[in-house]
Amino acid sequence: MIKANDPSLQSWIEVPVNSDFPIQNLPFGIARSHGAVSIIGNTVISLAGLQELNYFSAIKLPKSIFASDSLNGFIELGKPTWRTLRDRLSELFRKDNAELRDNEEAKKKCLVNISEVTMLLPVKIGDYTDFYSSKEHASNVGSMFRDPKNALLPNWLHLPVAYHGRASSVIVSGQNFHRPKGQMAPPNTETPVFGSTKALDIELETAFIIGKSTELGTSVSTKDAEDHIFGMVLFNDWSARDIQRWEYVPLGPFLAKNFASTISPWIVTLDALEPFRVQAPKQEPAVLPYLEHAQGNTAVDIKLEVYLQPDKTEALKICASNYKYMYWTMDQQLAHHTVNGCNINVGDMMASGTISGPTPDSFGSLLEITWGGANPIKFPNGTERKYLQDGDTVIIKGYAQNDKVRIGFGEAKAMVLPAT
Amino acid sequence: MIKANDPSLQSWIEVPVNSDFPIQNLPFGIARSHGAVSIIGNTVISLAGLQELNYFSAIKLPKSIFASDSLNGFIELGKPTWRTLRDRLSELFRKDNAELRDNEEAKKKCLVNISEVTMLLPVKIGDYTDFYSSKEHASNVGSMFRDPKNALLPNWLHLPVAYHGRASSVIVSGQNFHRPKGQMAPPNTETPVFGSTKALDIELETAFIIGKSTELGTSVSTKDAEDHIFGMVLFNDWSARDIQRWEYVPLGPFLAKNFASTISPWIVTLDALEPFRVQAPKQEPAVLPYLEHAQGNTAVDIKLEVYLQPDKTEALKICASNYKYMYWTMDQQLAHHTVNGCNINVGDMMASGTISGPTPDSFGSLLEITWGGANPIKFPNGTERKYLQDGDTVIIKGYAQNDKVRIGFGEAKAMVLPAT
Repeated sequence: MIKANDPSLQSWIEVPVNSDFPIQNLPFGIARSHGAVSIIGNTVISLAGLQELNYFSAIKLPKSIFASDSLNGFIELGKPTWRTLRDRLSELFRKDNAELRDNEEAKKKCLVNISEVTMLLPVKIGDYTDFYSSKEHASNVGSMFRDPKNALLPNWLHLPVAYHGRASSVIVSGQNFHRPKGQMAPPNTETPVFGSTKALDIELETAFIIGKSTELGTSVSTKDAEDHIFGMVLFNDWSARDIQRWEYVPLGPFLAKNFASTISPWIVTLDALEPFRVQAPKQEPAVLPYLEHAQGNTAVDIKLEVYLQPDKTEALKICASNYKYMYWTMDQQLAHHTVNGCNINVGDMMASGTISGPTPDSFGSLLEITWGGANPIKFPNGTERKYLQDGDTVIIKGYAQNDKVRIGFGEAKAMVLPAT
Repeated sequence: MIKANDPSLQSWIEVPVNSDFPIQNLPFGIARSHGAVSIIGNTVISLAGLQELNYFSAIKLPKSIFASDSLNGFIELGKPTWRTLRDRLSELFRKDNAELRDNEEAKKKCLVNISEVTMLLPVKIGDYTDFYSSKEHASNVGSMFRDPKNALLPNWLHLPVAYHGRASSVIVSGQNFHRPKGQMAPPNTETPVFGSTKALDIELETAFIIGKSTELGTSVSTKDAEDHIFGMVLFNDWSARDIQRWEYVPLGPFLAKNFASTISPWIVTLDALEPFRVQAPKQEPAVLPYLEHAQGNTAVDIKLEVYLQPDKTEALKICASNYKYMYWTMDQQLAHHTVNGCNINVGDMMASGTISGPTPDSFGSLLEITWGGANPIKFPNGTERKYLQDGDTVIIKGYAQNDKVRIGFGEAKAMVLPAT
């Protein structure tokens, strides 16, 4: 077991019950005016501050590596360094370590309450890829728009379908965005109209962040894939279904997606998620050799929830899904992405695609939850929703939990502002 | 007329007949060990050198702005600065100006023959978008794969169809790449096999480079679009047709394209192309208001040629097309791309899509030139080609020319190496 994952560890920093951030998590993020940070409970930890005060003197780190507006520089130092740093944080903050605990001046310099901090995008995302790897989601969409008996297209069970998304419009939790405008064709017509979308949807996803670059012309095997993954975030791939329906043939979604995509600010390392590895679903038919896995737990049990909060209405949980349902794993996604020699860079983001489970309460988009609008979501106060309205806030939460520890992601949250 | 475009200008630097780079061009690029450079004839001009020697002292420029591995910092200074700098270069290098001409030491420091220089990618590309804006190309593809009577999909005449490409695998002319491997389904089967592509193709394109960023949630009008465009390059969107055919539904091309995309190293400014503006093709049906153009010459007359050179065989011109054939203009592409609030950044690249003309000798891909393999390209020595073989070199050339001046792009060239 990775030392920092020991469930018996406790921190001298207070950790509220059901906090996403016990000492076993130690995710990484970027905070305005603080640079690279980690968190325990509600206490944000300035890594630049700790480095400056020589708390990392035993680790080989470039000067001021944490005084940055992105984690890319730190991530580029490589997996052994991430691990060593996480181990050191685990040691420094555990209950019985007085080094920092009893140094009031140092604590003042390095620790700050989360309420006083604005979290920013954790990485400079070079390229962003979105997969389509939930069999339940692909089947639901295929059933609605094509034929329930042939819901999956012929390629789906053979490769993790994916497309390139727009990196520039990835925003961090808490940043709201305007309802997009665009072209859409009214039902049964082929003459488009222009306006703001009437079918603004969510997509419950996670994403992983690349931790090790490759050269053009080289490939990453499923076996080596996790050496190239730094960690994971929550992801909401906002989608304008009416714009999408009109524009997407033959080259895929474009303006229906690239107006905004929300990620959670904390990157949870694969190391922290290690106790929650589980078997991935059986793949039938067998995959081609380059997509084969070594034996083992290649999926991760991450509970995922979506809350919808219309203006002046209480938030309602509209979905409870799980990352473990994914048909294609991160390792397979990365092996597929690079099998043609495509190079990847530190900070690249690869999203899962909508994560739908087997039952309607686990569907990851409004399209599926309402089954194309046939079953609107009903709030206790009578409010109904097929798609999002202005003023609606959507919150995605995620956490891995067993009877000993909870490794959470925080949230990916944003409100829909009116079209400009 | 822009001063630096005066066709009567001559430089004290020798310009060979039919050079792409007369004093009226002054494109921008990045050279290894030199940073930002321009070129006249075969002479590369070090902008960092000129700045250091105070030849730009009348222009407000940050210190060492040209000593960089990308033009992004310079481009961010804005259009008035690009113009002022181009005007100054035009002045400094014209025949009757002795400032630099008669300073041997300064010339030694700032000028170098192109043969002694390695050109690099000119910009850090944040996001790369590929349009699909040639009516002839879309019609050819639609005719081959669907129905010649309904070759265009319903959305095509209403919006410039586009998708996001991969920025990391954009390479500069002269860098060769390996034939990609991947999944493909043999004809009439739905069981894929794995191997190297048997259908490696080219796509003759140009691309424009964003010169001015926008904020998320804002849009760029057709009228303002060219304030946001720095210049243009040649572009070869290498494509593996067999991989593409199997993977592209429903989310568009992915591994069939992202193994390599070649651009020419010199960014030719829109200012330099200004004398070559021409009317764009008439659009019927009328476009929605946000895509309407002001009156004027919104297209550009750029002659484009593709040469194919198998190993140990003479190069053959396989296509002569023209950028002026494009149905959708750059202004419309940019207005469409941002109408939903999608933000753009300096250095982003937006490619045209395959530029096919009306006649078979102007088709911009092997798929079209050979009409799906039915009419192989025949070389004088008997060699034939349907798709590219290992050792084949493809060269795209481009230039705008009238009876007074030729503004060229140089070339986008690469050789296909065997699969690894």
